[in-house]
Amino acid sequence: MAGNTFGRTLRVTTWGESHGTAVGATIDGCPPGLKLTPEMIQLDMDRRRPGTGGAASPRKEPDRVEILSGIFQDTTTGTPISLIIYNKDAHSKSYDNLREIFRPGHGDFTYLKKYGIRDHRGGGRASARETAARVAAGAVARHLLLQENIKVQACTVALGGIKITRHNIDEINRNRLFCPDNEAAALMEERIKKVREERDTLGGVVEVKAYGCPAGLGEPVFDKLDAELAGALMSIGAVKGVEIGSGFAAAAMKGSQNNDAILPTGFASNSSGGILAGISNGDDIVVRVAVKPIPSIAREQQTVNLANEPVTIKVGGRHDISAIPRIIPVCEAMVCLVLADHLFRQRTIQ
Amino acid sequence: MAGNTFGRTLRVTTWGESHGTAVGATIDGCPPGLKLTPEMIQLDMDRRRPGTGGAASPRKEPDRVEILSGIFQDTTTGTPISLIIYNKDAHSKSYDNLREIFRPGHGDFTYLKKYGIRDHRGGGRASARETAARVAAGAVARHLLLQENIKVQACTVALGGIKITRHNIDEINRNRLFCPDNEAAALMEERIKKVREERDTLGGVVEVKAYGCPAGLGEPVFDKLDAELAGALMSIGAVKGVEIGSGFAAAAMKGSQNNDAILPTGFASNSSGGILAGISNGDDIVVRVAVKPIPSIAREQQTVNLANEPVTIKVGGRHDISAIPRIIPVCEAMVCLVLADHLFRQRTIQ
Amino acid sequence: MAGNTFGRTLRVTTWGESHGTAVGATIDGCPPGLKLTPEMIQLDMDRRRPGTGGAASPRKEPDRVEILSGIFQDTTTGTPISLIIYNKDAHSKSYDNLREIFRPGHGDFTYLKKYGIRDHRGGGRASARETAARVAAGAVARHLLLQENIKVQACTVALGGIKITRHNIDEINRNRLFCPDNEAAALMEERIKKVREERDTLGGVVEVKAYGCPAGLGEPVFDKLDAELAGALMSIGAVKGVEIGSGFAAAAMKGSQNNDAILPTGFASNSSGGILAGISNGDDIVVRVAVKPIPSIAREQQTVNLANEPVTIKVGGRHDISAIPRIIPVCEAMVCLVLADHLFRQRTIQ
Amino acid sequence: MAGNTFGRTLRVTTWGESHGTAVGATIDGCPPGLKLTPEMIQLDMDRRRPGTGGAASPRKEPDRVEILSGIFQDTTTGTPISLIIYNKDAHSKSYDNLREIFRPGHGDFTYLKKYGIRDHRGGGRASARETAARVAAGAVARHLLLQENIKVQACTVALGGIKITRHNIDEINRNRLFCPDNEAAALMEERIKKVREERDTLGGVVEVKAYGCPAGLGEPVFDKLDAELAGALMSIGAVKGVEIGSGFAAAAMKGSQNNDAILPTGFASNSSGGILAGISNGDDIVVRVAVKPIPSIAREQQTVNLANEPVTIKVGGRHDISAIPRIIPVCEAMVCLVLADHLFRQRTIQ
Repeated sequence: MAGNTFGRTLRVTTWGESHGTAVGATIDGCPPGLKLTPEMIQLDMDRRRPGTGGAASPRKEPDRVEILSGIFQDTTTGTPISLIIYNKDAHSKSYDNLREIFRPGHGDFTYLKKYGIRDHRGGGRASARETAARVAAGAVARHLLLQENIKVQACTVALGGIKITRHNIDEINRNRLFCPDNEAAALMEERIKKVREERDTLGGVVEVKAYGCPAGLGEPVFDKLDAELAGALMSIGAVKGVEIGSGFAAAAMKGSQNNDAILPTGFASNSSGGILAGISNGDDIVVRVAVKPIPSIAREQQTVNLANEPVTIKVGGRHDISAIPRIIPVCEAMVCLVLADHLFRQRTIQ
Repeated sequence: MAGNTFGRTLRVTTWGESHGTAVGATIDGCPPGLKLTPEMIQLDMDRRRPGTGGAASPRKEPDRVEILSGIFQDTTTGTPISLIIYNKDAHSKSYDNLREIFRPGHGDFTYLKKYGIRDHRGGGRASARETAARVAAGAVARHLLLQENIKVQACTVALGGIKITRHNIDEINRNRLFCPDNEAAALMEERIKKVREERDTLGGVVEVKAYGCPAGLGEPVFDKLDAELAGALMSIGAVKGVEIGSGFAAAAMKGSQNNDAILPTGFASNSSGGILAGISNGDDIVVRVAVKPIPSIAREQQTVNLANEPVTIKVGGRHDISAIPRIIPVCEAMVCLVLADHLFRQRTIQ
Repeated sequence: MAGNTFGRTLRVTTWGESHGTAVGATIDGCPPGLKLTPEMIQLDMDRRRPGTGGAASPRKEPDRVEILSGIFQDTTTGTPISLIIYNKDAHSKSYDNLREIFRPGHGDFTYLKKYGIRDHRGGGRASARETAARVAAGAVARHLLLQENIKVQACTVALGGIKITRHNIDEINRNRLFCPDNEAAALMEERIKKVREERDTLGGVVEVKAYGCPAGLGEPVFDKLDAELAGALMSIGAVKGVEIGSGFAAAAMKGSQNNDAILPTGFASNSSGGILAGISNGDDIVVRVAVKPIPSIAREQQTVNLANEPVTIKVGGRHDISAIPRIIPVCEAMVCLVLADHLFRQRTIQ
Repeated sequence: MAGNTFGRTLRVTTWGESHGTAVGATIDGCPPGLKLTPEMIQLDMDRRRPGTGGAASPRKEPDRVEILSGIFQDTTTGTPISLIIYNKDAHSKSYDNLREIFRPGHGDFTYLKKYGIRDHRGGGRASARETAARVAAGAVARHLLLQENIKVQACTVALGGIKITRHNIDEINRNRLFCPDNEAAALMEERIKKVREERDTLGGVVEVKAYGCPAGLGEPVFDKLDAELAGALMSIGAVKGVEIGSGFAAAAMKGSQNNDAILPTGFASNSSGGILAGISNGDDIVVRVAVKPIPSIAREQQTVNLANEPVTIKVGGRHDISAIPRIIPVCEAMVCLVLADHLFRQRTIQ
């Protein structure tokens, strides 16, 4: 029953399979009057695009986004914005051997259990290719937020067990991993290289921050801002954990350590991650997500086929070593969508 | 805009303030034919009720739940079930001094920013008292799940920095902290005692498991089962983090370590926490949440008043040392609500 | 699956059965800062209450509404408003003979088909008593609209085949039928008297107008203002038809007759009923509904019992001759709810 | 705020403007396992397509529908179905003179009031061209219903004041107007011819029936089956009224006339239109809609321009004389979407 739509006021529906004709998104509820061109969306698309080295996959998709509706003279009109990205470089044949086998760590088994049928080519709808549509829609949300001077930026704070030791925002765009610590980034790249040789893959931690978010966003009780951020980020395939502010570390703290004192000039610390009782407090919003290692590994794994017979599998195809850094713009997109949605929700009571 | 309703097919709306007349829940979409009496709900209510020792608050609420509608001859009819729990022991006067002061770590500041008005008595709507209504509604979901042999149970796996060293399901109900390790529980109680003397509070980690959940629950993309569990659990006031299966530990693993091999007899391990690509795989569902220390501490803290002048505050009232163990049935309630909702959602495509 | 909630931004959930403990409504999304007392709601409740003569039923319900939450110092806080109306005068025994029989024109048959179980006492959830909760919630919406100088008023334009011949707004509150034509009202009363003697019942037509509604309310395509008004009004049990502006008469008109010319001073006529392409145009909004005769008649009718055997039935209980005039405040309530919802929805894009 | 999505379990979002690149629909929630080819959808598209004579417009759109996702080996997989129909024959230039003028009876004025911007070319999003996407989506719903032996068929029962005098279902597809009375159809065609010469347009009445619908569909209270049908049909631009069963005629009937007696063999009559208390009773579902005359007439009309100065307008472009018969498949599409949605909703409580 309809799990492909996100948001209440700004509603995004994505569609499309990895090896189908195209993937796309329809955005309903975008306010009129926003300047919007394909180029403005393409900037985010390009950050998500498979690169040529490091952790990235060799699948080459130009990922050109087209705007099919909702725009008149490069300006949104308030009507639905339909975005489409054609699939160009899908090599379905290379998945033929997967027709009858469930890849460990993938949705092959569960999609078949749920639907009784599955498009086995490249993971079908469960493929990370679906996130191209999220990034396109998220770019529209990003520009809506920028009108209100709200800026969303994600970075890599851990990869393959290597953690950052400093957080220099200026370094984020100075390395391929969007890491705020160039030296840590270099160690991470070494780790990637080594694990590629081992035919294995790596996980990591991404931190997303929102700057300039006004106090008052978020609805109480079930639609708390942190609840919706957690749901939005956990809906990204590779994410296995989400934490806000002090997060899991708070579990071992005392109240006197975790509470943020309030001064006339603002909060003295930010354990809350910018959210109190589910509502933004005007401080930076801080969320971190645990990214699991990509399950497609070029090593032999045990699994079963459709007849439930034991078989081994070595996943070929063209795959990344880590979901990082390509997951970075996806995380940003989801946070942008949540914040824009809540920005408009807040207007209903004003 | 309306954040007080949870679910798609089984829709729960809660209402009520800490020091108002009552709190309650309306459940819409409960299938007909379920045997349901107030006593069946009361069992869960009693587990959430303030106790007399340990981590618990001295506020004494009988928390008697009444069923006002939706039942005919002790059986659900398919119409909305209205549940009400009257507030009996609200000492609003003891909050008079908070009328003009924002308590650190609470929603006082953000509610005022959002709404321009706030019910300062006991936190109003942002009070943990709201969770009484969740537990009542969750009990109905629990009984719907039991009809399908799905069982949900939460336990304490860490408190005040003390972690369990064994996971014996039989011990969960043998100590006041619902801890699967009686020895760890004893250490936790000592820690609570010490911190109470320090007039401070403690956080911890709760694990929730669902047993017997069939494969196929969860919707792809945005309404993934893990995404909805994360959102549901993060909507509990004290929760700052959620992880599924291997969770944050996965960030430092390799794919070959984190993947669950599939054998003809089932999954060889459960890093996935029972969910692949957002859909249940038939294995146990495993979720953990980070619970922050209760922000109401009987020590002096810096804050500001309505005029933004610096003041100090020492929170009196009647408060727990830790949200654990009272948060245990609340976590269970949210997981029950998510699973029941997805059980019915899955039927729409069958 | 959850049919008891209405609205997107202002969300109302009603609950309760005719012969249960109480009926009620929860309103989620009401903006903060509205002055609200039980007395302000009671005014509308009293207009819906069974009277003592004419078309009205002898069931005597005081219909006292209580506000259980969402109010602080007689002002809304933005949190859910829970309204409750206890059932006092339910004579369930008088329905004992209906336990095994389906009343023609009622939901007895369909509720059993849908749910496999039914509360036969007084129609259970399908009873018009449910509309008491709608009127209570609608009163809140009415006061939200009055803040914006939008006024909603319904009147009787036909009853038992007698139609008004003038439309004098000042006469609406000068007769018991809320009829804008006192002379027609007198004829209608005679008709009611005669049909009461025949042990039969009557239908009619109610017109609802909204004055002062700004241009721009209503969402395009599926959530058009007229579409939502039609759905809202058709959700009232006795309503079998809805028309906007020229309505069914438009079917026999030419375009040159039905089009409303636009002058610098406004629209020259109002065939559109104040709505163009689903969006309000600033003119009065005009909707009419066809109200069927009450199906409970004190004459013998053919029906079947649970065993599908033919039986005859003569409905006792305490019933009105016509749903008019008690349906008048219910129609107003639904229009108020739709307009307030769209007022807030429009803010999301501004 | 998002008015372009319809349905709860079967969710359809349409997008696109009259003179944009394309129009389309995304269907979320379609169960897996339905055989579906473009040709199966095209059948309905062709019935809606502009014809060459009679009431039809000379705009020639091939209206070829493409399926972009959700299908694997000509079978639905449970993932979103994206449908696209490219606009081929849009003559935007012919609308240049409308850039600064509001056409009477159209959404030009209200779209500008709502959004502050409008795509004036051919009515933009408010154009009837949007209904091409509804028909495409409705065709999918139609095939889902056919699996359950539910059949939906609409026909013309009045046009230009001429009413049918017999209702022969076999004649519906034997004349261009889908009229169940060939002789009335001939008179209607004469009327169309005459009014075309007068440069005017005509309204009419369309009846939609659903055969084979099981008892039990429809949710109580707000989401009644008749309420949702009314809302769905009133969301079609040209519709100004909706009635169920005896409809407006019921307003002048007595209860003894309007009640449908229940016999062991079924209902003795069908005043209810197949719906009791908002739930289908197993009888044929009968709905009628009032269709207003097309507002675009080739006669001079008074209106204003953007500066609110009086001007006259004579609408050129390429227009139909009546929305009938092209509205016929649109009405069917909306009824199919409502019924399929409720069919799946009913499963959630079973």
